[in-house]
Amino acid sequence: MVICFIGDSLVNGVHDPEARGWVGRLVSDIHGGDEMLLAAYNLGIRRDTSADILARWQDEVESRLFDDEPMRLVFSFGAADMRSVTGGESRLTMEEAVSNARALLTAANAKYPVLMIGPPPTADPAFTRRLTTLDQHYAAICDELVIPYLSIIADLQNSEIYLEELVNGDGVHPGAAGYAHIFRLVNAWPAWRFWFDSPVQVA
Amino acid sequence: MVICFIGDSLVNGVHDPEARGWVGRLVSDIHGGDEMLLAAYNLGIRRDTSADILARWQDEVESRLFDDEPMRLVFSFGAADMRSVTGGESRLTMEEAVSNARALLTAANAKYPVLMIGPPPTADPAFTRRLTTLDQHYAAICDELVIPYLSIIADLQNSEIYLEELVNGDGVHPGAAGYAHIFRLVNAWPAWRFWFDSPVQVA
Repeated sequence: MVICFIGDSLVNGVHDPEARGWVGRLVSDIHGGDEMLLAAYNLGIRRDTSADILARWQDEVESRLFDDEPMRLVFSFGAADMRSVTGGESRLTMEEAVSNARALLTAANAKYPVLMIGPPPTADPAFTRRLTTLDQHYAAICDELVIPYLSIIADLQNSEIYLEELVNGDGVHPGAAGYAHIFRLVNAWPAWRFWFDSPVQVA
Repeated sequence: MVICFIGDSLVNGVHDPEARGWVGRLVSDIHGGDEMLLAAYNLGIRRDTSADILARWQDEVESRLFDDEPMRLVFSFGAADMRSVTGGESRLTMEEAVSNARALLTAANAKYPVLMIGPPPTADPAFTRRLTTLDQHYAAICDELVIPYLSIIADLQNSEIYLEELVNGDGVHPGAAGYAHIFRLVNAWPAWRFWFDSPVQVA
């Protein structure tokens, strides 16, 4: 099985002193658990907006197709879209962000099994409010497209260690414990487990 | 500083139960050592030959440029080129492999600082002999282009744990200890250290 994790710096694992992020922790858990040979590609890019991802995801995924092994995609983005900029509220408007996400997820879902994970919170309340609204839009789009969606923003807002790492960092990226928290949320998600537990997928 | 690690499955870290490979270990060592903010991208793809890499490296690097931060590239490939195939000695001929490497390194070196790391050995003596020849060609090309080149094949052939992990694995990829061995070789390499120790680079 081949899995591409596509998104922004939070997919890449920026600021994790272990340089693993939640993606590295997920993949090592699969490797350790049942020795399944999983080819995993981390395609998270710092400051990538939905527009950037829309422009590159298809070429990068096609370069990673491997014989006849099934390809699966996990998307997670949004923070770069909603980031504050001078002279405007955020880099993209909410409408642009939602429109890009819809185009991206529709195209990806037509070709591959897709999972989508929402954005985590930040240390900036206004930024996080925009992300909460975006999170709700993502949930609605995924519901419509029948793509499993995992919202993590509320859970992480209740995590003392996550918020502490945000404040001690750059306000957007957590440290090792915060990434481990996201890892645990994804790893316990039935839609993720289904890729590995279902007899059809393992065959 | 942004660094792209571009190559094959040995760059990706395939079969490492920790899902870090030598690249993940290098990056976490930099993060832990001096808290330098390093954006690192692992662009290793399973079974990618020099021809595959030649076709994709430029687009993938350009998508990862970040404002005015300096971009640096580390290449490592060759095993997929020299892999045995039915009906032929290897997937690419030695001439094709050398010609692709020259084209790739010439183009990359014209745009970015480049380091090149040679292929490790395999459990198959004929395969490893071809890689040893390729390693010598790579050294000559890099010498001509003034690209620092690190040959690791002889050192790893003397590593009991590396050879043991090859035999216990698929004959091409080591496990955690073997990847840690490659990490130590690269981490001690003056050309790699120079990117972090030079006052010009840190400024």
